[in-house]
Amino acid sequence: MTAACEGQVVLLLSQDRKKFFLHLQPGQRLQTHRGILYHDDLIGRPLGSLVRSHLGHRFHLLTPSWEELLRSIRRSSQIVYPKEIGYILVKMSIRPGTVVVEAGTGSGALTAALAAAVMPAGHVYSYDVREDMQQLAERNLARFGLQEFVTLRHRDISEGLDESEVDAVFLDVPTPWRYLDQAHEALKGSGFFGSILPTANQVVELLRGLEHSSFGFTEVEEILLRGYKTIPARFRPMDRMVAHTGFLIFARALVAGWAEEE
Amino acid sequence: MTAACEGQVVLLLSQDRKKFFLHLQPGQRLQTHRGILYHDDLIGRPLGSLVRSHLGHRFHLLTPSWEELLRSIRRSSQIVYPKEIGYILVKMSIRPGTVVVEAGTGSGALTAALAAAVMPAGHVYSYDVREDMQQLAERNLARFGLQEFVTLRHRDISEGLDESEVDAVFLDVPTPWRYLDQAHEALKGSGFFGSILPTANQVVELLRGLEHSSFGFTEVEEILLRGYKTIPARFRPMDRMVAHTGFLIFARALVAGWAEEE
Amino acid sequence: MTAACEGQVVLLLSQDRKKFFLHLQPGQRLQTHRGILYHDDLIGRPLGSLVRSHLGHRFHLLTPSWEELLRSIRRSSQIVYPKEIGYILVKMSIRPGTVVVEAGTGSGALTAALAAAVMPAGHVYSYDVREDMQQLAERNLARFGLQEFVTLRHRDISEGLDESEVDAVFLDVPTPWRYLDQAHEALKGSGFFGSILPTANQVVELLRGLEHSSFGFTEVEEILLRGYKTIPARFRPMDRMVAHTGFLIFARALVAGWAEEE
Amino acid sequence: MTAACEGQVVLLLSQDRKKFFLHLQPGQRLQTHRGILYHDDLIGRPLGSLVRSHLGHRFHLLTPSWEELLRSIRRSSQIVYPKEIGYILVKMSIRPGTVVVEAGTGSGALTAALAAAVMPAGHVYSYDVREDMQQLAERNLARFGLQEFVTLRHRDISEGLDESEVDAVFLDVPTPWRYLDQAHEALKGSGFFGSILPTANQVVELLRGLEHSSFGFTEVEEILLRGYKTIPARFRPMDRMVAHTGFLIFARALVAGWAEEE
Repeated sequence: MTAACEGQVVLLLSQDRKKFFLHLQPGQRLQTHRGILYHDDLIGRPLGSLVRSHLGHRFHLLTPSWEELLRSIRRSSQIVYPKEIGYILVKMSIRPGTVVVEAGTGSGALTAALAAAVMPAGHVYSYDVREDMQQLAERNLARFGLQEFVTLRHRDISEGLDESEVDAVFLDVPTPWRYLDQAHEALKGSGFFGSILPTANQVVELLRGLEHSSFGFTEVEEILLRGYKTIPARFRPMDRMVAHTGFLIFARALVAGWAEEE
Repeated sequence: MTAACEGQVVLLLSQDRKKFFLHLQPGQRLQTHRGILYHDDLIGRPLGSLVRSHLGHRFHLLTPSWEELLRSIRRSSQIVYPKEIGYILVKMSIRPGTVVVEAGTGSGALTAALAAAVMPAGHVYSYDVREDMQQLAERNLARFGLQEFVTLRHRDISEGLDESEVDAVFLDVPTPWRYLDQAHEALKGSGFFGSILPTANQVVELLRGLEHSSFGFTEVEEILLRGYKTIPARFRPMDRMVAHTGFLIFARALVAGWAEEE
Repeated sequence: MTAACEGQVVLLLSQDRKKFFLHLQPGQRLQTHRGILYHDDLIGRPLGSLVRSHLGHRFHLLTPSWEELLRSIRRSSQIVYPKEIGYILVKMSIRPGTVVVEAGTGSGALTAALAAAVMPAGHVYSYDVREDMQQLAERNLARFGLQEFVTLRHRDISEGLDESEVDAVFLDVPTPWRYLDQAHEALKGSGFFGSILPTANQVVELLRGLEHSSFGFTEVEEILLRGYKTIPARFRPMDRMVAHTGFLIFARALVAGWAEEE
Repeated sequence: MTAACEGQVVLLLSQDRKKFFLHLQPGQRLQTHRGILYHDDLIGRPLGSLVRSHLGHRFHLLTPSWEELLRSIRRSSQIVYPKEIGYILVKMSIRPGTVVVEAGTGSGALTAALAAAVMPAGHVYSYDVREDMQQLAERNLARFGLQEFVTLRHRDISEGLDESEVDAVFLDVPTPWRYLDQAHEALKGSGFFGSILPTANQVVELLRGLEHSSFGFTEVEEILLRGYKTIPARFRPMDRMVAHTGFLIFARALVAGWAEEE
């Protein structure tokens, strides 16, 4: 039976489905709307078990999933949802050992997901012009123990990227079409380009930019997640769903004119 | 400029969008509908560049994405698509170091994706009753260089799983509700359970099984992927799309009655 | 310029998008959160124009669309949305002159839509076991001036339907599979059967029933409506949408064994 | 038992689901891939029954639904599907007695649907610059017996519309933003404007036009139709679906500045 241990990040889930993320440390306590829980009482408890607050209310003690951790990050205006993150990983071949450049960092949700996927051998370089966002991202990364796999760069990417021969570049900025040259220069041949944009107008601008670039094999896709109610006798979709987060755009870095020059 | 090297798996994409996956080896050649390409000519070429067949037809030389590799696997009846795989990884927290049990192996598409995500420290144990499928999966895993991260078990999971305290169990079998006890026993407390099922009838059966099990926090979700045409002046969704692959079911392993026994 | 006239049902739309439906009658007044509007001031005003309350707040004076009228009906548990209603009309060929049987009446939203489509020559017969619902439906039909095209029958349809040789039967009840014989008997040869059900379990039951009935050409479909934001510079889908109202089931009444008997 | 009668349009459906639409006339015959059927044999047969070709192959004798008739119309480039037609009817309040202007006529699918919904008291005025399309539309309307409810106008709508005080204007043309003034002039106050456009770029143009027009309450919506397999033991969505036909745009004709002038 695996037990919760000191230093671990755990999730307490109340009966009314409120979520509390805890970094277990001796002597600490968690104050909730349903009473107090002492970290010392939680350390050593089996994961997956029920625990009680000082008022007797029940909570489930769980390890948070990556989806839950990512959802717990306070979000900036530009949102990358778990449903998009998983698809980005598969589509851009981001896995242990991959080197990725990302801009902007934002609150660090995508940064954390990328770092968690490329560690321990890979690395994430993340650019942002806003210092406050990078500080927030730094705190979030520390919370997940992922700082060592990320280098935050507080800079405008219009000046170019410091990296070269990277496997993938993901632009989570409002005007990615302005940085296609910088992205191409940083990428290795055949490298992966990705972006997420909320409006059709932005996608059209990016498609125009990509058309006049050395990128090829452009794809635009959208991920829709439909939840279902889980009562066996009344199986049906949820009444409402998130209808839009963003359009995903993918392309590959090509070597311009190479074959033609032969 | 990164060059294609001996031993690497590359993707040749013809002008008419036919895809050829090659394991580059000196002395070999590829016969296509548009002429022959010699591996010796490809080794050393920049990735992302255009190459020509002996008939002068042009091909793009690329590294395949994980999505493309997974799509290239000859599929068994039960299909796990890239759109689902990415979401499964995020939802079940499958990342470097994770230990996963999967059943059934099938043609090994999900097995390969899981292995690629958990390597080098993690491991995948994959069960299947069909020997021919496991042999096919073995060849696919070898092709991707992922054999060492997977242990194939040719056995019926109704007899139980050999593993214990694993992080995640994914059941890609037609009647997962029969193996909930075996899955729970193999999982660590708070571990992740997942399954994919094509029909609503099967989901209802699984929901009934989960209701009477020690699993909790059950969710049923569906991922829809909508593709868009990429001509900037005529941005619009594709005319047709894949409307259904399967329902995804997720749950967490709880410690039954633990708190109550106190 | 068309003017609003006495006896007409109009829609007043406030600047904050609150909707007020009015049956224009001399001497009456409408009290709103933004002041009072006198019917006498509205009668004779051009439709489509702006009018002001006694506090000077502006309202648009419009004729309500059928969609708006239907949405204004206080709903019972079983909801038929405008998106479904339009499709039902086309799919079941409901048009001027058609004779339709419906059960249950509910609050009369579908009843009103059917009556509005089949009038003046057609007719709707609507059954319900709940007297309170039929009284509510009656008021709603009167509000739309559609009473003469509808006959409400306060009765359980398990006893059979009074009508025969009707063009279409629509069952908006929780267990339509119990009334397939009654529906078939009321329909003319090749007549249209339709139903709407919220859960997959119910659809499975109805499909089983239809399989052992004299109905054929069964179809199950679902209508999803996705709204978009209308700012030209930021065209994008709405953030959230209605994800499920019900599954639509359609079938045709066949003459059992007729050809075989020849 | 309703019987097929002379002059009626019927649908013959073969066992392999091929559809044959017939205008029943004495002495005529239908040649199919499964043998010949004589109209004289069909006249008088019960609708919904099975009939046989001279080779003994079975066909179902049905009345076609409006959906089937509309689908049978040979389509021009611009497609209005049954799923959109139903929604347009409800959203634009098109029902018995309504007067509608449509441009362009195209092959007449939407024209026929509109005529069928507004008859007998209403009327459809349909404009098109292409004479060949109007001739095709005329044949299609005759086939459905709807000619008397439609006036075809072979003319460019940039010159303005002949009608005024109409209830609804639907523009099924590639550049509807050019004709907003003409549409507004033809509409009665608070009248309904609608359009269907395949690309996001066109929608953006139309939204820009509407913003600077006397229309208000603009909405953009998309209808998605998801089909399901009908085997009760394996209920699930179809594998593939139509992902896009067009964006629907709706607006209301307002009286510009009216209230302000008071």
